[in-house]
Amino acid sequence: MKKISTRTRVLTVTALATALGAGTFGAVSANASAPAAETRAAVQKDLSNKHLQQNTRLTVDAAAKAAQATLDAAEKAGQRVTVAVVDRDGKTVVTLRGDGAGPQSYESAERKAFTAVSWNAPTSELVKRLESTPNLKDIPGTLFLGGGAPVQVKGAPIAAIGVAGAPSGAQDEEFAKAGVAALSR
Amino acid sequence: MKKISTRTRVLTVTALATALGAGTFGAVSANASAPAAETRAAVQKDLSNKHLQQNTRLTVDAAAKAAQATLDAAEKAGQRVTVAVVDRDGKTVVTLRGDGAGPQSYESAERKAFTAVSWNAPTSELVKRLESTPNLKDIPGTLFLGGGAPVQVKGAPIAAIGVAGAPSGAQDEEFAKAGVAALSR
Amino acid sequence: MKKISTRTRVLTVTALATALGAGTFGAVSANASAPAAETRAAVQKDLSNKHLQQNTRLTVDAAAKAAQATLDAAEKAGQRVTVAVVDRDGKTVVTLRGDGAGPQSYESAERKAFTAVSWNAPTSELVKRLESTPNLKDIPGTLFLGGGAPVQVKGAPIAAIGVAGAPSGAQDEEFAKAGVAALSR
Amino acid sequence: MKKISTRTRVLTVTALATALGAGTFGAVSANASAPAAETRAAVQKDLSNKHLQQNTRLTVDAAAKAAQATLDAAEKAGQRVTVAVVDRDGKTVVTLRGDGAGPQSYESAERKAFTAVSWNAPTSELVKRLESTPNLKDIPGTLFLGGGAPVQVKGAPIAAIGVAGAPSGAQDEEFAKAGVAALSR
Amino acid sequence: MKKISTRTRVLTVTALATALGAGTFGAVSANASAPAAETRAAVQKDLSNKHLQQNTRLTVDAAAKAAQATLDAAEKAGQRVTVAVVDRDGKTVVTLRGDGAGPQSYESAERKAFTAVSWNAPTSELVKRLESTPNLKDIPGTLFLGGGAPVQVKGAPIAAIGVAGAPSGAQDEEFAKAGVAALSR
Amino acid sequence: MKKISTRTRVLTVTALATALGAGTFGAVSANASAPAAETRAAVQKDLSNKHLQQNTRLTVDAAAKAAQATLDAAEKAGQRVTVAVVDRDGKTVVTLRGDGAGPQSYESAERKAFTAVSWNAPTSELVKRLESTPNLKDIPGTLFLGGGAPVQVKGAPIAAIGVAGAPSGAQDEEFAKAGVAALSR
Amino acid sequence: MKKISTRTRVLTVTALATALGAGTFGAVSANASAPAAETRAAVQKDLSNKHLQQNTRLTVDAAAKAAQATLDAAEKAGQRVTVAVVDRDGKTVVTLRGDGAGPQSYESAERKAFTAVSWNAPTSELVKRLESTPNLKDIPGTLFLGGGAPVQVKGAPIAAIGVAGAPSGAQDEEFAKAGVAALSR
Amino acid sequence: MKKISTRTRVLTVTALATALGAGTFGAVSANASAPAAETRAAVQKDLSNKHLQQNTRLTVDAAAKAAQATLDAAEKAGQRVTVAVVDRDGKTVVTLRGDGAGPQSYESAERKAFTAVSWNAPTSELVKRLESTPNLKDIPGTLFLGGGAPVQVKGAPIAAIGVAGAPSGAQDEEFAKAGVAALSR
Repeated sequence: MKKISTRTRVLTVTALATALGAGTFGAVSANASAPAAETRAAVQKDLSNKHLQQNTRLTVDAAAKAAQATLDAAEKAGQRVTVAVVDRDGKTVVTLRGDGAGPQSYESAERKAFTAVSWNAPTSELVKRLESTPNLKDIPGTLFLGGGAPVQVKGAPIAAIGVAGAPSGAQDEEFAKAGVAALSR
Repeated sequence: MKKISTRTRVLTVTALATALGAGTFGAVSANASAPAAETRAAVQKDLSNKHLQQNTRLTVDAAAKAAQATLDAAEKAGQRVTVAVVDRDGKTVVTLRGDGAGPQSYESAERKAFTAVSWNAPTSELVKRLESTPNLKDIPGTLFLGGGAPVQVKGAPIAAIGVAGAPSGAQDEEFAKAGVAALSR
Repeated sequence: MKKISTRTRVLTVTALATALGAGTFGAVSANASAPAAETRAAVQKDLSNKHLQQNTRLTVDAAAKAAQATLDAAEKAGQRVTVAVVDRDGKTVVTLRGDGAGPQSYESAERKAFTAVSWNAPTSELVKRLESTPNLKDIPGTLFLGGGAPVQVKGAPIAAIGVAGAPSGAQDEEFAKAGVAALSR
Repeated sequence: MKKISTRTRVLTVTALATALGAGTFGAVSANASAPAAETRAAVQKDLSNKHLQQNTRLTVDAAAKAAQATLDAAEKAGQRVTVAVVDRDGKTVVTLRGDGAGPQSYESAERKAFTAVSWNAPTSELVKRLESTPNLKDIPGTLFLGGGAPVQVKGAPIAAIGVAGAPSGAQDEEFAKAGVAALSR
Repeated sequence: MKKISTRTRVLTVTALATALGAGTFGAVSANASAPAAETRAAVQKDLSNKHLQQNTRLTVDAAAKAAQATLDAAEKAGQRVTVAVVDRDGKTVVTLRGDGAGPQSYESAERKAFTAVSWNAPTSELVKRLESTPNLKDIPGTLFLGGGAPVQVKGAPIAAIGVAGAPSGAQDEEFAKAGVAALSR
Repeated sequence: MKKISTRTRVLTVTALATALGAGTFGAVSANASAPAAETRAAVQKDLSNKHLQQNTRLTVDAAAKAAQATLDAAEKAGQRVTVAVVDRDGKTVVTLRGDGAGPQSYESAERKAFTAVSWNAPTSELVKRLESTPNLKDIPGTLFLGGGAPVQVKGAPIAAIGVAGAPSGAQDEEFAKAGVAALSR
Repeated sequence: MKKISTRTRVLTVTALATALGAGTFGAVSANASAPAAETRAAVQKDLSNKHLQQNTRLTVDAAAKAAQATLDAAEKAGQRVTVAVVDRDGKTVVTLRGDGAGPQSYESAERKAFTAVSWNAPTSELVKRLESTPNLKDIPGTLFLGGGAPVQVKGAPIAAIGVAGAPSGAQDEEFAKAGVAALSR
Repeated sequence: MKKISTRTRVLTVTALATALGAGTFGAVSANASAPAAETRAAVQKDLSNKHLQQNTRLTVDAAAKAAQATLDAAEKAGQRVTVAVVDRDGKTVVTLRGDGAGPQSYESAERKAFTAVSWNAPTSELVKRLESTPNLKDIPGTLFLGGGAPVQVKGAPIAAIGVAGAPSGAQDEEFAKAGVAALSR
């Protein structure tokens, strides 16, 4: 076994920085449970120093723009919701507690976003996985209710938007996806 | 940059302050899951300043009166319970730990009230929603057991009463509703 | 003693809704420790129903505008900070985690805002109170470091902005005050 | 093996139940730090069964009466506060969040009461003990600020009232003592 | 409505202190879910002062004796367990972490005891109630697994013993009941 | 009083220290739910002092070696995971957060390891026990998902490895077992 | 650098198991802050397997005996206290909540014991270290008040006893030391 | 409305990815409190997409190498410590609980690392800042004791190493710096 530090760990996502452009954002559109998609990650080896990696994130401006677009979509639909944007590490970047949103909505929104970014899929898709693996929902920080949508770059999750407060998770998720879509404009 | 604050967000509940009177309190009597009811909120735009909204709450005197009436109802039925009143933001306003109530009753009462005010329905109704959306009960702070009843003004939730300690949630909720009813006297 | 509910509790802030207008926002400018200022509250008795009170809050749009202005001020100064806006109840309404802000900044910002809104004074003023009452800082949820500024309506606190991440609390607070000022434009 | 339970542990407070009457309630009036006072306890051996002890508590009605009297006193003084009553075990029995009280006041009131009942002295007295033993204030659940007052029966603590929200702890404590006094009427 | 404090709240358990003797301890032997049993409480009005009630508890010596007997029973059966005794308020009075007991056993034992004392029934009985009311198990502090047994005085719960670590909850509960039985010797 | 400590508590695992050697490590290979296996413990009476026992643990070097082997196995399979090693007391000894592992993986890995060491079985086996005892999964600190594997000495658990982040628990557990196997080399 | 697993880490405490006997227990008697004492540890390399170490602990019987002796000492002095015994890993092994002990005493006792075992010195000695290093007391789980005493084997800490509830930490610690002394009888 | 996202936020750290090489790691060597140093951040605008930023991190292999080197340094000095490596977001990446390290050391190590990475300075330097700003130490997650050292790239913090368990923080920090130095080899 070589020294830990001299082994070269090949990352499977390559050339990330070179090709990103408008239009690369979007919620998972196909098979959310595909292993291939799941193991993508928005990190890449730093070519100039073997000890470093580069991690892709939304800027706070982009996150705020997405959150605002999400809230606007809810408002148009006459719904009172809270919106949260979390990064790939599960840290909350932006929150907007909408006027009149219920008290349960704040932490729900954060957890839906956390769940979506953890498995790189909309939470409405993830709910289906509980049929085969019901205890997934016992993982701390998660919430398996519709309303979370990942923000992806070339299929890898870099953030997620979570929404809570509308009468159904489907509606919450529609707003979250409107927020994701705003990043491509 | 167009200021975020100059957009006019139209609130769907209007003329709230002008028409409130005795008799407007009551638990949800009809279709607890109706979206229309759910999206009502006891907030309204402040007409004199675009940055402000007005939020309706029970006074502490009203909350204490309701809690006392709730405890009295339990006592008449020979039950030992704890009573909690929370506001629309989920904050506890009044608690009364009844003589001989079990140790599980205090936090249960708070959570039942939190749950009732979050979805603007008695918790006995909300339990039924778990059939279609079982993970609702994973939202932090909630408890899906009978015993919580919302306090409404024109259909919008402004508070809730939670009760725990009786042998059944149905009994707990009967006491909670007696507390709500006391606000109309 | 009359029934609890029939006593009339006279609130000391009157005519709140009638006279609010642009320019009424601002951080405490005078004697932050004056009891008179401290006991003002942005609540008023609801004239039409003895059980209700009206509570004034920022709209989410106003809070987001203030938070954005705060972050912009920090950016102009070349500082990386996190911004939080909390309401009078201490609940977080908006957060913006700035690009490159340290990991300690998120909860610090929330706590500074919580502290400012609790005592209706900038946290830089509140730090001084620890000389006579050092244990104030043991109250849960508080943080006695410069960087929090209250948002007032006629002298009563309705929200606060907290900032953390700059090398000094004085700088943090300068940005927070810029956020408050944006509400008067 | 000699049974642990056959040893007779003599309790130092005797004849507790026989002599309690109106007028026995009151805050500590003399030397709060006297060891003799501190080691009294409102428990007594059950004479009919060696395994049992009897523990004295306020009824919820008494606790509610005291809390209401406390809030009334604050109101008369024009202060907005939260009131908490805890029993000798530190459990909260009654809370009243006063209209317009700051968000820091709820947990502060509970902790002041917890502190007063733990050491059987008003918290304003207990603050002085920090001069010789500063780390007392690191004990979980405590808050060393004026505003907590014990409820005593023959010198032993059976409950405490905590108040928070006024500009000074001295004022908070004045209201708490008014609440204690109401139990002797 | 009379003043809160002057109402006389009649407690349903009377003459508690006069008749307790050896042999009154025991786990629920009959219908654990009977409302009558459930609403009994080991508290009684203090006849000499309307504001006071008397609360019955195990002495620490009795609790230690019961815990030791529980551990001895487990040892005889060759099982490694943790034992906890809690009082009627849910507070832990005695714990014994047995040699070699698994790390999950400590908090499990406390929660089983908490659950047993809350509903005044062995936890193996309480598990059955989840069939009709599955969300009971979401109440904070509870654990619905065999291994908890209440300690009763005239049918009212005054404490409970919880055991965890054996391969089945049935075994755990057998040890807990041995501990309860030791109090009648 | 016969001293508690003079009773001789016979431990069922004997001669532990004398016969351990390479090759004794391994995940449970047979009937994971056998009571006999479950009650083994890696502790033994200290022969020279009746008050002491000896507890067997991995060295940190061994734990780090196992964790590294686990991460290497995941990497070879192209999976991004977090690895945790906990000791028999449930304390975390080593963690490795793999590059690009999801935010849910860190606490998941710790909990899987905690679960495996608590019941001395791979978590994939333990999931099956929920069929007969579903509430096992409510025990604090546990997570019933594949990915945890115990490290045993003569059948008794002394540590466990937990892995999270791969698309399935089965894969996670394969890596964990590779880590266990590395201790026999 | 050799492989992690093949390096031989020499432990500085040798021959631990061979020479332990009655009388080796005792609180630190000399210079509590001596680095030499502090770095001793009750672990030793397992000679038969390079991956294992042996960790010395009190049996539960010994811990219960010590706790009971501690409580007896307090009782003789007429003090009401809670006693906790923790092992070298900081885990609570035995607790005894004394009759009439204050509500703050339970967690205080555990933390004092945790502190004493962490630095292998009575907490009254450790308080003095805060003069040069005041922030030691910010370490989670600690409490720097007299009342904790380590249990040592050949100078290394294997457990600690914590006591809380007496009027002074000095008294608490006297009882704790009586508990330690009981292990040498 | 001008899109939030179209504003160009100029980051002050440029050309990060192009020039990193061996030897760029190191603890702060000069004026730790210099604002210029503090506001550097290891993030940079993504040139190909205005919504993205790139964040530099250690690989898990580098973090493990550094942690191992830290533990080796402690071992050479005969000290028993726990080591933690956290990234710029405060998340723990690697932990190694050394053989015989005290129970307080695990969380201490994590908090020291968190503190060092938050302010980009060794914690021994940060302790000095408390002279002018004592309440810094009230920020959640921090610990102001020597033993934390940042890992920097061109002066910006990308990670930190925390060590706890040696008799002095100075020694802990020496080991942490040895870990940082290992990254330049």
